[in-house]
Amino acid sequence: MAGNTFGQVFKITTFGESHGEAIGVIIDGCPPNIEVDLDFIQNELDKRKPGQSKITTQRKESDTFQILSGVFEGKTTGTPLAIVIPNEDQKSKDYDHNKDTFRPSHADYTYQTKYGIRDHRGGGRSSARETAARVAAGAIAKLYLQQKGIDVLAHVSSVGKLDAPEVEITNAEEFINLRENNIVRCVDALTAEKMIALIDGIRKEGDTIGGKITCFIKNCPVGLGEPVFDKLHADLGKAMLSINAVHGFDYGSGFDGSTMRGSQHNDIFQTDGNGKISTKTNFSGGVQGGISNGMDINFRVAFKPVATIMSNQETVNKAGEAAEIKGKGRHDPCVVPRAVAIVEAMAALVIIDHYLRNQLYQSK
Amino acid sequence: MAGNTFGQVFKITTFGESHGEAIGVIIDGCPPNIEVDLDFIQNELDKRKPGQSKITTQRKESDTFQILSGVFEGKTTGTPLAIVIPNEDQKSKDYDHNKDTFRPSHADYTYQTKYGIRDHRGGGRSSARETAARVAAGAIAKLYLQQKGIDVLAHVSSVGKLDAPEVEITNAEEFINLRENNIVRCVDALTAEKMIALIDGIRKEGDTIGGKITCFIKNCPVGLGEPVFDKLHADLGKAMLSINAVHGFDYGSGFDGSTMRGSQHNDIFQTDGNGKISTKTNFSGGVQGGISNGMDINFRVAFKPVATIMSNQETVNKAGEAAEIKGKGRHDPCVVPRAVAIVEAMAALVIIDHYLRNQLYQSK
Amino acid sequence: MAGNTFGQVFKITTFGESHGEAIGVIIDGCPPNIEVDLDFIQNELDKRKPGQSKITTQRKESDTFQILSGVFEGKTTGTPLAIVIPNEDQKSKDYDHNKDTFRPSHADYTYQTKYGIRDHRGGGRSSARETAARVAAGAIAKLYLQQKGIDVLAHVSSVGKLDAPEVEITNAEEFINLRENNIVRCVDALTAEKMIALIDGIRKEGDTIGGKITCFIKNCPVGLGEPVFDKLHADLGKAMLSINAVHGFDYGSGFDGSTMRGSQHNDIFQTDGNGKISTKTNFSGGVQGGISNGMDINFRVAFKPVATIMSNQETVNKAGEAAEIKGKGRHDPCVVPRAVAIVEAMAALVIIDHYLRNQLYQSK
Amino acid sequence: MAGNTFGQVFKITTFGESHGEAIGVIIDGCPPNIEVDLDFIQNELDKRKPGQSKITTQRKESDTFQILSGVFEGKTTGTPLAIVIPNEDQKSKDYDHNKDTFRPSHADYTYQTKYGIRDHRGGGRSSARETAARVAAGAIAKLYLQQKGIDVLAHVSSVGKLDAPEVEITNAEEFINLRENNIVRCVDALTAEKMIALIDGIRKEGDTIGGKITCFIKNCPVGLGEPVFDKLHADLGKAMLSINAVHGFDYGSGFDGSTMRGSQHNDIFQTDGNGKISTKTNFSGGVQGGISNGMDINFRVAFKPVATIMSNQETVNKAGEAAEIKGKGRHDPCVVPRAVAIVEAMAALVIIDHYLRNQLYQSK
Repeated sequence: MAGNTFGQVFKITTFGESHGEAIGVIIDGCPPNIEVDLDFIQNELDKRKPGQSKITTQRKESDTFQILSGVFEGKTTGTPLAIVIPNEDQKSKDYDHNKDTFRPSHADYTYQTKYGIRDHRGGGRSSARETAARVAAGAIAKLYLQQKGIDVLAHVSSVGKLDAPEVEITNAEEFINLRENNIVRCVDALTAEKMIALIDGIRKEGDTIGGKITCFIKNCPVGLGEPVFDKLHADLGKAMLSINAVHGFDYGSGFDGSTMRGSQHNDIFQTDGNGKISTKTNFSGGVQGGISNGMDINFRVAFKPVATIMSNQETVNKAGEAAEIKGKGRHDPCVVPRAVAIVEAMAALVIIDHYLRNQLYQSK
Repeated sequence: MAGNTFGQVFKITTFGESHGEAIGVIIDGCPPNIEVDLDFIQNELDKRKPGQSKITTQRKESDTFQILSGVFEGKTTGTPLAIVIPNEDQKSKDYDHNKDTFRPSHADYTYQTKYGIRDHRGGGRSSARETAARVAAGAIAKLYLQQKGIDVLAHVSSVGKLDAPEVEITNAEEFINLRENNIVRCVDALTAEKMIALIDGIRKEGDTIGGKITCFIKNCPVGLGEPVFDKLHADLGKAMLSINAVHGFDYGSGFDGSTMRGSQHNDIFQTDGNGKISTKTNFSGGVQGGISNGMDINFRVAFKPVATIMSNQETVNKAGEAAEIKGKGRHDPCVVPRAVAIVEAMAALVIIDHYLRNQLYQSK
Repeated sequence: MAGNTFGQVFKITTFGESHGEAIGVIIDGCPPNIEVDLDFIQNELDKRKPGQSKITTQRKESDTFQILSGVFEGKTTGTPLAIVIPNEDQKSKDYDHNKDTFRPSHADYTYQTKYGIRDHRGGGRSSARETAARVAAGAIAKLYLQQKGIDVLAHVSSVGKLDAPEVEITNAEEFINLRENNIVRCVDALTAEKMIALIDGIRKEGDTIGGKITCFIKNCPVGLGEPVFDKLHADLGKAMLSINAVHGFDYGSGFDGSTMRGSQHNDIFQTDGNGKISTKTNFSGGVQGGISNGMDINFRVAFKPVATIMSNQETVNKAGEAAEIKGKGRHDPCVVPRAVAIVEAMAALVIIDHYLRNQLYQSK
Repeated sequence: MAGNTFGQVFKITTFGESHGEAIGVIIDGCPPNIEVDLDFIQNELDKRKPGQSKITTQRKESDTFQILSGVFEGKTTGTPLAIVIPNEDQKSKDYDHNKDTFRPSHADYTYQTKYGIRDHRGGGRSSARETAARVAAGAIAKLYLQQKGIDVLAHVSSVGKLDAPEVEITNAEEFINLRENNIVRCVDALTAEKMIALIDGIRKEGDTIGGKITCFIKNCPVGLGEPVFDKLHADLGKAMLSINAVHGFDYGSGFDGSTMRGSQHNDIFQTDGNGKISTKTNFSGGVQGGISNGMDINFRVAFKPVATIMSNQETVNKAGEAAEIKGKGRHDPCVVPRAVAIVEAMAALVIIDHYLRNQLYQSK
C-alpha cells in the first residue's frame, strides 16, 4: 500500500533515506541455491555510485554492502535476503537551506503536504540514493537470469538532442565492453565522445540536461507476462517510470509506431523448419499480447534534466511565502550514465519476477 | 499473480472472453454510499462499443450491462460490486481459420505457448473486448471522483502523422462537448475532419493506422501517489500500457523533456498570497516525486495500428509450419476513437485508487 | 483490502448478497487444462444447499450455477473462471422486521456502523449464502487436487456435547460413503443417529445448537506452506475462521497438546528403508515449521449455535433505542451438516494455493 | 508469496536467521508523526528475550535494536521503518550435530525438503528468534494504538493442566503490574506460583511442557475487520497460528461455544440511553460478522511443548537412514512466559492494520 515494495514472487522492499543511517533492501521470494557472487554485486553498485567520473556528482559513497540474512555458505537459502548499504558522505548541513523551502521540481512540497513531516536532508526518501538498493537486488536477479542465459543490456542512447545510432547486439560481453569503455556509457564510441563534451560543458555552466537509455533483453523465453493488467511491457513500463526523473517509456515501435500502418507494422511469423518460430521484423519489441514471444525485448526510457542547478531560483517556503533557493550542493549534470545500472536492475527484477510467475504454468 | 486484477484499494478483477457467455468485472473496495447513475455507466460504455460510426468496426454489441451485487436501493454498499456484460454478436465461425494458425502481431502464438490451450475465437481473453469491463468499472470510479470535483478528460491528439494543436482546458463540459461533436473524438474540429478522412481512406484500403490519445486530470488534490514504486505516474503508465495496442506512455514534458536543460525545465513555485501554491510552468505534468502537486496532470498514450488487416499474410501454424492467414473479419481501421473511453476509465481507476490510499494519511 | 479475496496464486474473489440478483466467484490463477466436471461441481453445491433434509433450513435454493468464462471445450484455459449462482427463493419481505432493528449475534449492527448502509434482507453480504460461491470454487480446486492424488475429507465430529469416536481413514471413497449415508454427515452411524435426534429436538423447540467438524487432508506432498507468516496451518486456520459462525480452530494435538510434555509430544522420524520418511506419531498434524511433512493433515473447526432462533428477543434499533426482534424466518437448527462442504472447499482452496506456490521451488 | 510479510496497510516483512548476522524487520505503511519511544520498544523486546529468568532458556541475547530509517527527529515519517537486531550469542558449533540429522518435531526435515538447502544452525529461519523482529514492530504498533486508547493485554492462562481463574480487566496498568510481578507472567499470583514450580520441575527433568495464553483487546472501536475473508478474528487467528509452536486458537465462546444453544449464546444488545450500544453477554468475543462491535475482544492461544528436550531421541538423517539425536543445547522448558510479548505484538499488528484499513471508510 505504501509503495515501497516491487514484484510479486521475487518481491523487493527498499528502505532508507539519503542522510539516515543506511539504505537497504529485503528480497522475499528469492529462489534457493543461487551462488552469490559478492564481487559481481559490488561491481553493479559501482556503476551507479556517485563520484565515479568528472561528469557525475562529486559526492563520495563507496556503496559497500553487507548481506545480513538469506545466504548460507555462499548460496541463497530461499529465506529473505537482506542487504544493507551504510550511508557515508552525509553532509547534512549542506541541506539546512532546504529545511523550510521547497526546491523547484523536487519532491519537497509534495512530501511535506502528504505526510505533514519530511526528512529534508538531501531529499530523504525521495533521493535517487534509494536506487542503490534496487541495483543490489537487481544484481541478485541477474545472477539467476544469467544461469538461464538471459541478458539484460542497457546503454545511453541520447543526451539532450545527441542521439546514438541504432545498435545491433550480437554478443553481451562485447556490448558491455564497448559501453564501459567510456564514462557516459554509450556503446558508440564516437557519439560517446560528443556526449561527454556536451555534459561537461553544461556542468561548467552549472546547468543540467536530460537523456535517454535504451535497454535490450536477450534470450528471454516465450511466455513471460500475465494478461491482462500485468502485461510484460506494462510491468517494465511501471518499473522504469518508478525510477527518479523518468518521464517517458516506450517499447518496440513505440511512439513512432503510432504513425505507422498495420500492413507495415505487422511482424510476420516465420519458421526455421525445426520448429523454431520467430518474426521477420520486431515492431512488437519482443512482446505480443503482453507476453514475451522469444524475440529480443527492447524499450526506451526518457529522463528529464536533474532539478538541482547552480543558479538561485525563486520558490515558496513551508509558510506559503515567496522565497529564494540558493544554487549549491553536489549533483549530477546528467543522470543517464549512472542510471544505466538502475534501468538494468529494474528490468532484471521484472524479468525474474515474470520468469518465476511463469513457472506456475510449467507444473506437470 | 495471474494478472487480471488492478488496483490496491479500489480493486477490479475482470473476466471473460470475446466469444464466451459474457465479460464482466468485480470491484472489491468500492466505497459505500455512491449514487449509482445507470445512464451514466451505459453512456460511458457506448463511447467504447463497436459499431458506433463508419470509422469503427461494424461488429454489433449493445454492451448492455447488469449489476449483480453491491448496490442496494441505488447506492453502493461497500460490498463487491459485480457487473456482467453479455456477449451478443458472437460469430464464432468467423474465426475457424484462426484455430490452428497464428495471426501476425496478435497474441495467438504467445497464449498458445504459455497455456498450452487457447480460446481462439476472436482473440478470446486477449481481445480488446475485455476493456468494456474496465470502462464499466471506470464509470463507477468517475461517479466517485465527480463528487470530489476531479475530472478525467481525454481526446484523440494524433492519428498517424496528423497532430491536433495543444489544448487548453478551461471547462470539462465544454471539452466533452467539443470532443463528442465528431466521431474521431478530437476536440479540435478542423483536425478532427482531417483525421476522419484519413481513417476512412485507410479503411477502404483494408489497412489500419495508429494514433495517440492525450489525457488530462483536473482538480486532483495534492498528495496522491506513493513513493517509491507506486509513483502516481508509474501507476498511470502501467494502466495505460495494459491497454491493448499501447506501445508508449509519457507525461509532463515527456520524451521531449529529455532534450531540455534543468534551467528551462524546472517548474518555479509561486503563491497567490492566500496560501495556494502552484507552479509557473508544468513540465512536471502535475506530479513531483511521484506525488500529485495540485497542477493539472497530463499524459500521452501511443497506440500501434490494429493488427487485423484485410490482406492475406504469411504466418506459421500450431505445428510450426509455414501457412497463410486470410484477411477477413470486422475490425477497426483505427483504435483511438473508441480507446478514449478506455484511457479515461483506466486513469479514473488509478486516481480513485490513490485517492483512497491517500485517505490513510488523513487519519486524525 | 476490502477482504473479499482469498489465496495468492489460486485467487478467488466472491461477490453477492443473499437477496440480490446472484452470488458468484471469480477464480484468477486457475491452472489451464483442468477438465471441468460440471456434475461434480453441482454435487458439491448440493451438499451445502438449503432444504436438503429435515434438520436443515427449509429455504429452497437449487444453487444451479453457470460458468461465464475461463473454460473452453470443457477445459480451463488459465484465464479467469467466473461462476454465477442466481438467487431464487428471495422472500425479501420476510426481512422487513429486520430493517431498522439489529438481530442479536448477527452482523447487522457492525455492518451498519462500518458502512453507514446495509442490505438488511437476510443478512445481505454477511449471510452464509456467500459460502456457496466458495464451494463452487473449492470444487474446481478439488478437481485439480484429485489429479495429484490429494484427498480433502471432513465430517461432523460433534453436535453440542455429542462427540463421534476418533476416525481412522483408510479409503476416501469409503469415508464419503459412510458420511453421506446419513443426513448429519458423521461417518459413525451410531453417533449420527443420536446427533440427528438431538438436532431435531432442538429444532422443534425453536432453538439451535453448535457443533464441530473434523477435516483430514490425505496424500499431501512434503513441502507445502511458506514460513514465517503463511504457515500451512495458519492459512488453514484463517480459512476456517473466515467461515460464518466459526469460533475456534486447532490442528494436530491442538488445544490438548498444550497440556502435554515434549517427551510425549515429539513425533519420532522413521524410515521404511526405501527413503520414505514418516513419523511414528502425528501430534504435529502433518505440519512442521508451517510446512507439510507428508503425514495426514488433520484439524478441527468449532461452530457456535446459529443466532436466529424462534423466540422473541430484546435488542436495540438503528436509532439506539430498545426494541424487540420477532423470532421468525427459515433457518438451520444446526449448521454443521451443511458446513462440511464449506470446510472441505476452504481446505481445498488453501491446499491448491500452497501446492501452486510450492511449484516456484520446483524450477530446474 | 514467500510468506515473510504480514499486514496489508501496516505491512511488516521480517528477515534473519538465528545464527546469521542479524534479524530485523521493515515496516512499510507506518503512519507518519508517531513519537518513537525507544525505551518502550526495548522494554517490549526484553519481555521476549532469552535468559530473563530461571524458567527460560539460558541463551544470552541483549536484543538491542537499531533503527536504520523512517524516523526523523524522534518521529516516524511515513517512509519504511527498518529495525535491525544483531545476533550475539551465536554458538553455532552447538548445532553441528544437527547438520545432517533431523530433530523430531522441528522444521529441519520440511525445510531441507522444500528448499534443498537449509541453515541448520539453531533452526535458522525457523527459529523462534525471528519473533523478536515481530515484537519490535508490534511495539511501534502499540505506540500508535495507545494514542487511540486501545490496549492489548495478554497473560499466561495455563501451563500444562494448571489453569488460572478467569480474569476481569478493569485497568490496563494494574493488569500489566500483576503480570510482570512474577516470572511466568500470569496475573493470578497464586496460580503463578504453582506454574513456576511446575515448569521448574520439568526443566530439571530435561523435559518441556505446553501452555495457553489469553489475550484481551480493550477499547477497540466498532467497525474493524473486513468481510468476508479478512474477518477480524480470522486475521487474529492467522497471526497467532503463525507463531512458533501454536496449535490452536479460539475466541469469544470458542470451542466451548460449540456445545451451547443459540438461546444461551446470543448476546443481547442494550443501550445506555445515550446512544451507546453494548451487549449483555460477550460470547461473540467482541467480534460479530467478522467486525469488532466495541466490546472487549478476547481469544486464547494454545502452545505445544517445546520440541527440544534433554533426552536422546531416535530420528533419521538427510540420507534417509535411522539416526540418533543427542539431547543438548539451551532451550526453554516452557515457551509461554516469553510468548506473552509475541502474542501481544501480533495482536497489535492485526489491530493497527485493521484500524488503518477502516480509515478508508471514514472519508468525507
